[in-house]
Amino acid sequence: MKNSITPKEENFPQWYIDLVLKAKLADYAPVKGCMVIRPNGYHLWENIQKNLDRMFKESGHVNAYFPLLIPESFIQKEKEHMEGFSPECAVVTYGGGKKLKEPLFIRPTSETMIWSMYARWITSYRDLPLLINQWCNIVRWELRPRLFLRTLEFLWQEGHTAHETYEEAEEEALKMLRIYKNFIEEYMAIPVYEGQKSESERFAGALQTYTIEALMQDGKVLQAGTSHNLGQNFARAFDVKFATREGGEDYVWATSWGVSTRLIGALIMAHADNRGIIIPPKLASLPVVIVPIYYSASERSKVLSYIQSLCLNLRKDFNIKIDDREEYRPSFKFNEWELQGIPLRIEVGPKDVEKKEVVLVRRDTGEKISVSFNEVSLRVPTLLDEIQKNIFEKAKKFKEENTFKIDTFEDFQRMVNDKGGFIYAHWCGLPECEAKMRSLTAASLRCIPFHNEKEKGKCVYCGGRSSERVLFAKAY
Amino acid sequence: MKNSITPKEENFPQWYIDLVLKAKLADYAPVKGCMVIRPNGYHLWENIQKNLDRMFKESGHVNAYFPLLIPESFIQKEKEHMEGFSPECAVVTYGGGKKLKEPLFIRPTSETMIWSMYARWITSYRDLPLLINQWCNIVRWELRPRLFLRTLEFLWQEGHTAHETYEEAEEEALKMLRIYKNFIEEYMAIPVYEGQKSESERFAGALQTYTIEALMQDGKVLQAGTSHNLGQNFARAFDVKFATREGGEDYVWATSWGVSTRLIGALIMAHADNRGIIIPPKLASLPVVIVPIYYSASERSKVLSYIQSLCLNLRKDFNIKIDDREEYRPSFKFNEWELQGIPLRIEVGPKDVEKKEVVLVRRDTGEKISVSFNEVSLRVPTLLDEIQKNIFEKAKKFKEENTFKIDTFEDFQRMVNDKGGFIYAHWCGLPECEAKMRSLTAASLRCIPFHNEKEKGKCVYCGGRSSERVLFAKAY
Repeated sequence: MKNSITPKEENFPQWYIDLVLKAKLADYAPVKGCMVIRPNGYHLWENIQKNLDRMFKESGHVNAYFPLLIPESFIQKEKEHMEGFSPECAVVTYGGGKKLKEPLFIRPTSETMIWSMYARWITSYRDLPLLINQWCNIVRWELRPRLFLRTLEFLWQEGHTAHETYEEAEEEALKMLRIYKNFIEEYMAIPVYEGQKSESERFAGALQTYTIEALMQDGKVLQAGTSHNLGQNFARAFDVKFATREGGEDYVWATSWGVSTRLIGALIMAHADNRGIIIPPKLASLPVVIVPIYYSASERSKVLSYIQSLCLNLRKDFNIKIDDREEYRPSFKFNEWELQGIPLRIEVGPKDVEKKEVVLVRRDTGEKISVSFNEVSLRVPTLLDEIQKNIFEKAKKFKEENTFKIDTFEDFQRMVNDKGGFIYAHWCGLPECEAKMRSLTAASLRCIPFHNEKEKGKCVYCGGRSSERVLFAKAY
Repeated sequence: MKNSITPKEENFPQWYIDLVLKAKLADYAPVKGCMVIRPNGYHLWENIQKNLDRMFKESGHVNAYFPLLIPESFIQKEKEHMEGFSPECAVVTYGGGKKLKEPLFIRPTSETMIWSMYARWITSYRDLPLLINQWCNIVRWELRPRLFLRTLEFLWQEGHTAHETYEEAEEEALKMLRIYKNFIEEYMAIPVYEGQKSESERFAGALQTYTIEALMQDGKVLQAGTSHNLGQNFARAFDVKFATREGGEDYVWATSWGVSTRLIGALIMAHADNRGIIIPPKLASLPVVIVPIYYSASERSKVLSYIQSLCLNLRKDFNIKIDDREEYRPSFKFNEWELQGIPLRIEVGPKDVEKKEVVLVRRDTGEKISVSFNEVSLRVPTLLDEIQKNIFEKAKKFKEENTFKIDTFEDFQRMVNDKGGFIYAHWCGLPECEAKMRSLTAASLRCIPFHNEKEKGKCVYCGGRSSERVLFAKAY
């Protein structure tokens, strides 16, 4: 592996891969299309999990675990679902040394498995709502992998809920999208547009798909999370009926929703620079690292005991690492922790000890701030808050500056090719126009935004009537 | 499903299945051999994970994620490993609609995948020790499933560490077994014997396998966790060499260690009674449930507001559920929470409100204790401690009373058939004797205990010389 990181201005995709590999976030696995999530990357997933899981539980959801292997016949029960997923599946045909009578699909998503169980568990409105989530691995066949963004196997969570009415399912789908948006903006510091997918971009088997879409630094957009109102499609496919409050019988209403390890890719591409990744403090397992600087053994012991007393207070509130490795020089350590994206570095040298000071270095801006010993435990938390805020504000400004109102297809094409970003344009609502625009520009309809201003206009492609603008972009 | 639980004295296996299904801990999945872990069971796994994960991290380990799919050629690289696992594997032969050139095995364990990656990551002693764990799913073909105990797919953690020396690997293997023992005794309240496996019971590819063995209430034994000193076997198979401190080159030394969702099965079979499961307080997401008792609307509001003020303090320290469901009677609720194993129930009726009291009911003993309103927040934590301790002491007494020193093979056979339990007997060390005893009695050699008293004796089967007793039992 080469030593330097390709500048992102020069080659964004290569910059991304360089970062992932050099920061040891992930590695290519021996099976084509698969990745290994290394400890430096996995702790990001653990922190995503921890916070989202808390939010799910606070909103009444519980976790469960459903099997990895799904009978072929299940996948075929919901027609659209089958057409959407069947070609992407990995298929088990041998087990325990014998050929299987019915092939088993490794789950590409779990609607079919879960609804086959809900058929047993739900009989009455008293069993509803059923609000279950699972954290698991998923396989969708993929031979042009990009670490974290598109791999044959990935980790995700999938929520699957069951409700008495359409309205309740709709409310759940919207609520979960809001939780995703809150999490991703507040913890990952990535601003998003939220909205509804067009018919052609919907999940296979859904009445409605809602999405949050985030802008990456190269002007391409990444779908960061989706929630689906599945209507009664899966209940019909698996015959899941319930006795209603009114004494009748009805099919159960469903939602599903998920985010995956591709969020780690989003985190990198939204914030990282040419020195490394940048972890927002609220997502960092290690928000602060302390690097001692010394040139002799006596300096070393002086500096380290100063750091020890510094940590007495700080460690009460923060996980802090003292990088006292002898075999590396301070400059090497600075680079390494910047590559790893640790939000705040504290440098302590002999002169700092004399002056009763330390130097705080922000990862996001590179700014160095001298702070007196007594001030440190007050300054660190406020600085971490500032860093969190600054990372978000910077990304928000970038998103806003790269959202363009476009009124002609010429401008549309030029904008997609030259700058990327979100293109906010009129569309007549016809799938044919959407498909044409996509094939001509590679930009897809990302979403019809919520709280969208009504505005009469003409479809940027065909000139047909439109009552609102929608968001297009090239996407990951 | 029938309504009552089969008494354990009548039919222990049926009692176990009744509990698992009726307490909604797990359910049979549509694919033979697979299970669904339902929310009531999954939260136990979450609590096992949370506590063990903290212990792993405190001892310097980090988490990562390695792929599910392993090339057939990898499994074949370590001969013993291949012979051990190859017949149990599920094999993917189609992916993305095409037949694969090389079949992919769903991981039955990840030594081969992980060591193929370690070959890239380890070059020098500076890269060691490498202390990685992963939480994941595993598939081993199994058509005679028992929920939690033996299923085609299960969840586990597998630690895989790499070291400079044999001694360091040996120390790691023993350390992890100690962590398992501490966790299982302290949190799950299950006392265990710890020791070393005989050669024939070792993990496929290990120099040494260490184990903790727990006694279930039917006299059968369950292997609750194992750790392995793998020597240099996997390093040789995957050519993982490192530059030593001394300037030479050597193969890396390895360990692996794991526990799985079968621990939930152990929890049930160690503690549960005919009314339901019993969750030790330190493993309970919900340690306390409050059931209001009332016969009129005015009583209801009085009782509920009393409970609200009771909770003001209690909720600071404990997760507490107030079961104020209108559609069920108190007696139904008592049964349900006993079935679920909630450690402590608080009953509050109109008379309790008048007397400024509450009634605490212990799940482990059924004892009812009247406590004054002001005392409750002091009494609950001490009672939970007492319950935790009592559950453990009861199981420990049972284990000790069911460990038998046996000196003739006749007694051995009779004991295995009549009572079960641990049989502490002399063995000459020959695999042939071990195999014969197993085939004649179905009891296997569970372990050669640590800190074992040296005692001269004669092999209970062949009469050959022996210097210590070992533990035999029928096992799950």
